[in-house]
Amino acid sequence: MSPLILTTWDWVPEPPRGFVRDIRVRWALEEAGLPYRVESTPFADRKAGHFARQPFGQTPWLTDGDLAIFESGAILLHLGERSDALLPADPRARSEAKQWLFAALASVEAASQPWSLLIFSGESHDTSAWKMFEDFLNVHRLPHMERVLTGREWLAGTFSVADILNADVLRLVDRFDGLADFPACKAYVDRATARPAFRKAHADQMAHFAAADAA
Amino acid sequence: MSPLILTTWDWVPEPPRGFVRDIRVRWALEEAGLPYRVESTPFADRKAGHFARQPFGQTPWLTDGDLAIFESGAILLHLGERSDALLPADPRARSEAKQWLFAALASVEAASQPWSLLIFSGESHDTSAWKMFEDFLNVHRLPHMERVLTGREWLAGTFSVADILNADVLRLVDRFDGLADFPACKAYVDRATARPAFRKAHADQMAHFAAADAA
Repeated sequence: MSPLILTTWDWVPEPPRGFVRDIRVRWALEEAGLPYRVESTPFADRKAGHFARQPFGQTPWLTDGDLAIFESGAILLHLGERSDALLPADPRARSEAKQWLFAALASVEAASQPWSLLIFSGESHDTSAWKMFEDFLNVHRLPHMERVLTGREWLAGTFSVADILNADVLRLVDRFDGLADFPACKAYVDRATARPAFRKAHADQMAHFAAADAA
Repeated sequence: MSPLILTTWDWVPEPPRGFVRDIRVRWALEEAGLPYRVESTPFADRKAGHFARQPFGQTPWLTDGDLAIFESGAILLHLGERSDALLPADPRARSEAKQWLFAALASVEAASQPWSLLIFSGESHDTSAWKMFEDFLNVHRLPHMERVLTGREWLAGTFSVADILNADVLRLVDRFDGLADFPACKAYVDRATARPAFRKAHADQMAHFAAADAA
């Protein structure tokens, strides 16, 4: 079997460190115990070869033999199909895990990303745009996730890629204290990020970017 | 085989008609020639039973035997696994189609949805929020889609669920004249929506909501 190669930035500024999306892939690879190596692509000067792999000029992408896959959700689905540690074998639980993989992106992050972009940009909390996107997240999404996660350890019964993606999305909300009113969501993030595979993935990402500073 | 059941709203106001997300599922079912029936859930009064099927109180969801699946992306993936008309059999093309299924949501719609929500809400084009989300779509996403779609008929070689999802996402941008500077994106939407399966899906959705008005 050809080795898996995860490509991420060669360097990023301080603020996103620990939150760059390669962590989702590292985490899954560590959970599954799949061997891989990490390669880098320039953050500052994105060449045509980069856009050929990732058409939006983002990272990460995964190379698996002659397949190259971008989009963290698609990579997690691909890895899930390679390892029972990442997607349950039972058809109903497997379907639930895949559904929550999409929900993390299209329902939860669709609301949390505009919210966090407005926070990053220093948007005043008096504007109509802030109120709309705050409602989108805090009225239309998080209370429902709170209900779903109350009394449920993992989204598809056992831990799966759905939890990697949902916990990582909620982790960024938590970073900006957005889970204060949602204790089940907060406990879910804490539970997920206490896993050894997350801790290794996080430490490895931090070390990768620290090494770039030192170089 | 048990019949497929697509659940959508019983009624919606005029503006979203033709754009309710059940169209993605109808379109796929028509492309694949899979028999299905449509059921309704109240738009105005969303009960606990609805949230049990779709935790965010949205539609559509698909019932396939003892599986109930929400999230249009997850439903399209599920249907793709049932029909070669929706996902190519070749492993590389299949992987590409799945990747673009995620990209439609997490890269394209992630930018087009905040943009269209701001348009819906009547946001002034002078605000910093408008400028940020307009850039997200018009600088960081659509020029890349334009390059990808230039000279390419469908995203994964042959028509697939990836095209249903990407064309539907871009179709909403086009509705607000957002594709004027992106002729390859516009031609892609036109090509996709000229397909008989889309036309039937669209007509059926319009008829479904018109019947509710008449009732």
